[in-house]
Amino acid sequence: MRQKKGYVIWLTGLSGSGKTSIGQEVFLELKKRGYKIEFLDGDIIRKNLTKDLGFSRKDRKENIKRVAYVVELLSRNGVGVIACFISPYQKERDYVRKKSVNFIEVYVNTSLEICEKRDIKGLYKKARSGEIKNFTGISDPYERPKNPELIIKGTKPSDIHKNKNIIIKYLSENQYL
Amino acid sequence: MRQKKGYVIWLTGLSGSGKTSIGQEVFLELKKRGYKIEFLDGDIIRKNLTKDLGFSRKDRKENIKRVAYVVELLSRNGVGVIACFISPYQKERDYVRKKSVNFIEVYVNTSLEICEKRDIKGLYKKARSGEIKNFTGISDPYERPKNPELIIKGTKPSDIHKNKNIIIKYLSENQYL
Repeated sequence: MRQKKGYVIWLTGLSGSGKTSIGQEVFLELKKRGYKIEFLDGDIIRKNLTKDLGFSRKDRKENIKRVAYVVELLSRNGVGVIACFISPYQKERDYVRKKSVNFIEVYVNTSLEICEKRDIKGLYKKARSGEIKNFTGISDPYERPKNPELIIKGTKPSDIHKNKNIIIKYLSENQYL
Repeated sequence: MRQKKGYVIWLTGLSGSGKTSIGQEVFLELKKRGYKIEFLDGDIIRKNLTKDLGFSRKDRKENIKRVAYVVELLSRNGVGVIACFISPYQKERDYVRKKSVNFIEVYVNTSLEICEKRDIKGLYKKARSGEIKNFTGISDPYERPKNPELIIKGTKPSDIHKNKNIIIKYLSENQYL
């Protein structure tokens, strides 16, 4: 293992913005290169840590709090973490930043229009019809990151590869790799 | 850091058996020596991951499931974990074993009589009066480990130091240190 220090790549953005696709690419690339790296996203965390929680303001807060604990444990032990969470509130993202060693906030700035048009999981349709409540961007707020380390866009499928390279380059230039 | 490989020292036993005192000693010793090591116990996990859970059979299972996830992430990344949980059911301990890299089950075999006599937190008294339900050893079962890697006793205060040495010796002899 050639790991130098722990860090957290925190991908935030709307549902369908491409967070997980981009994060997975980065994760696989770093895994292949032999780094200590873990991938976390909403689905994995809900399955393992937070299946009691919904999407209210309070539950979102508790959800991020639990993720922050895991991220803290990993990053302070020299493990890299790729974390993909809508995480719509600045306050919660700042909380994770405070708990992490080397927090790198990556804003996946894909427009609501594009996310809704894609609607890969059919969630926007359900949110518009009211079947899903508290849906970020529709019936719940998304606070844009104030000072993210990186801003990327996940507009086209080919952007995944490009964005992966942007993140890898950032990690490399900042002595994480 | 001179870490060789990840592992999990899992201290199981009754409330008041001395799990946390022994675990803390081992943790501090390894920390001092510069190893990558984390300490987990019921109080820490309840605060960070499981404050929604009580002590029913179902909740205990979910509690251990969440701990197992954290332990899995840490141990597979070369971090040592000292975990102190009553964990009264063999099935749940076996579940953590399956998820862990190098699971070392340590049975802190202090008798119920002694634990109850000490009653440091006053919990046994409350359990006897019925104020606390589902209390391991009183109104809830404790399944003794079938094949633990180590069995220790936390009878006297001086045993803490002795038990620390037993665990450190085991780690050393099995190439974890």
